[in-house]
Amino acid sequence: MNNQLLPERTVYLVSDGTGITVETFSNAVLSQFDQVRFKEIHLPFICSIEKAKEAVIKINNTANETGYPPIIFSTLVNIDIMNLLKTANCIFIDLFGTFINHIEQAIGHKSNNSIGRSHMVSDSEKYRNRIDAINFSLSHDDGQFVNQLNKADVILIGVSRCGKTPTSLYLAMQYAIKAANFPLTPDDFERNTLPATIVPFKSKLFGLSILPERLSEVRNERRPNSKYATLEQCRYEVSESEKMMRREGISWLSTTTKSIEEISTTVLQEIGLSRTLA
Amino acid sequence: MNNQLLPERTVYLVSDGTGITVETFSNAVLSQFDQVRFKEIHLPFICSIEKAKEAVIKINNTANETGYPPIIFSTLVNIDIMNLLKTANCIFIDLFGTFINHIEQAIGHKSNNSIGRSHMVSDSEKYRNRIDAINFSLSHDDGQFVNQLNKADVILIGVSRCGKTPTSLYLAMQYAIKAANFPLTPDDFERNTLPATIVPFKSKLFGLSILPERLSEVRNERRPNSKYATLEQCRYEVSESEKMMRREGISWLSTTTKSIEEISTTVLQEIGLSRTLA
Repeated sequence: MNNQLLPERTVYLVSDGTGITVETFSNAVLSQFDQVRFKEIHLPFICSIEKAKEAVIKINNTANETGYPPIIFSTLVNIDIMNLLKTANCIFIDLFGTFINHIEQAIGHKSNNSIGRSHMVSDSEKYRNRIDAINFSLSHDDGQFVNQLNKADVILIGVSRCGKTPTSLYLAMQYAIKAANFPLTPDDFERNTLPATIVPFKSKLFGLSILPERLSEVRNERRPNSKYATLEQCRYEVSESEKMMRREGISWLSTTTKSIEEISTTVLQEIGLSRTLA
Repeated sequence: MNNQLLPERTVYLVSDGTGITVETFSNAVLSQFDQVRFKEIHLPFICSIEKAKEAVIKINNTANETGYPPIIFSTLVNIDIMNLLKTANCIFIDLFGTFINHIEQAIGHKSNNSIGRSHMVSDSEKYRNRIDAINFSLSHDDGQFVNQLNKADVILIGVSRCGKTPTSLYLAMQYAIKAANFPLTPDDFERNTLPATIVPFKSKLFGLSILPERLSEVRNERRPNSKYATLEQCRYEVSESEKMMRREGISWLSTTTKSIEEISTTVLQEIGLSRTLA
């Protein structure tokens, strides 16, 4: 069915901070509905009565224009701001409040009702670690800088264009993990040994592989009609790299049908790295 | 109070997919509690009865060892797997189920109860756009490659080390936005004009600035005891860059106390780019 023909509903994502928690949640829960198209409207930084009043006007306008009260997903914490929002013509879903009593009872402590805490630079050491990890992953991309590989938390290896770079950056950005990456090249396959540079760090290596057909597509976008992009060359490199990883006892996975998030989650599990949002 | 002295509670983050939604939610909601330390245990990819049984054993062990039933945040969708998890000695919090009836009533359609949809490569065009945006932002970092600036969604400008690179990568990774960045340097301030390369794209420019004291700290970590890192040099560059952005009518913000998420959210709002999770 053509997506454009589905009925449309408007969803407001209202937050006193960046709105990243509410958008992540909304994205996940609305993906369970495929008979409706959702139009998402973001209202981040709603942290004053003034801004809340403007939000109410927008929401009421949408209700009038569409004939449906919009759904509001809210991660608001301030009770006055939230109560004002609830006066709008809407279906109000309070993501935190719904659970907070339950959690308070479970742990025997009250919440502190403070706003926008999850993406604030409240803990500057933690934040600095994250920026350091991003810089580390950038400078250790594709084996370009190798002097500090001893400081890497993980070193992703694999043939050119198998997904090493985006995965490294995601690990750094999301989890402050220093993720280097290092290519396996035809030279390595001819020598039939791991690149000497990474041999000392074998316990940190994790391999990525990919179906040759998909690799050939990706490489063709980058360098059309090159030998590098031929299916024959891709088959050779993938086969040799998998053989090498198997022989060296290096864990690896195929990225062909996986998102960056799925690859990263698996890498963290397999390498046994602690996973804490940065 | 020393964080180590706080009572500790264990929280299990259980998901049939990557667990990114549940960890984002958990991180946000638990930041409301500062009298308890939380130990988070991730159980992603719980998508079979077999894995659910192993999870129940782990959870029960934690309950026995700590004397407290752990809190479970769940984004499980499969009802059999969820019911099995609920047999564990735990406080079970069902993030999706709690709201799904409410949403179903609001929109008049049933959910499809399918698992792990939010971080799957279900929509390969969307996913390809995201990888393209990451590659674009990487290759257009720090003005190194400028041939395709016309394809940029936004071009961040500012002095060296003010936060352009991590913000560009975050915008690409999270929202598939092609974010280039371009430095403002002492040469530009002497000439007293915007770099000629970016003048044609003035409507896409967004400025980042930073307090000179903080900039000097950041630069000192990178190049200790250099002229580049002196407070005097930083004051000069920041003052000149802000003067230039003001004169040219370019929106800008100070990154000094802001996280990548806060900067990105503001950039998207100000530039009027649509914000859709990639």
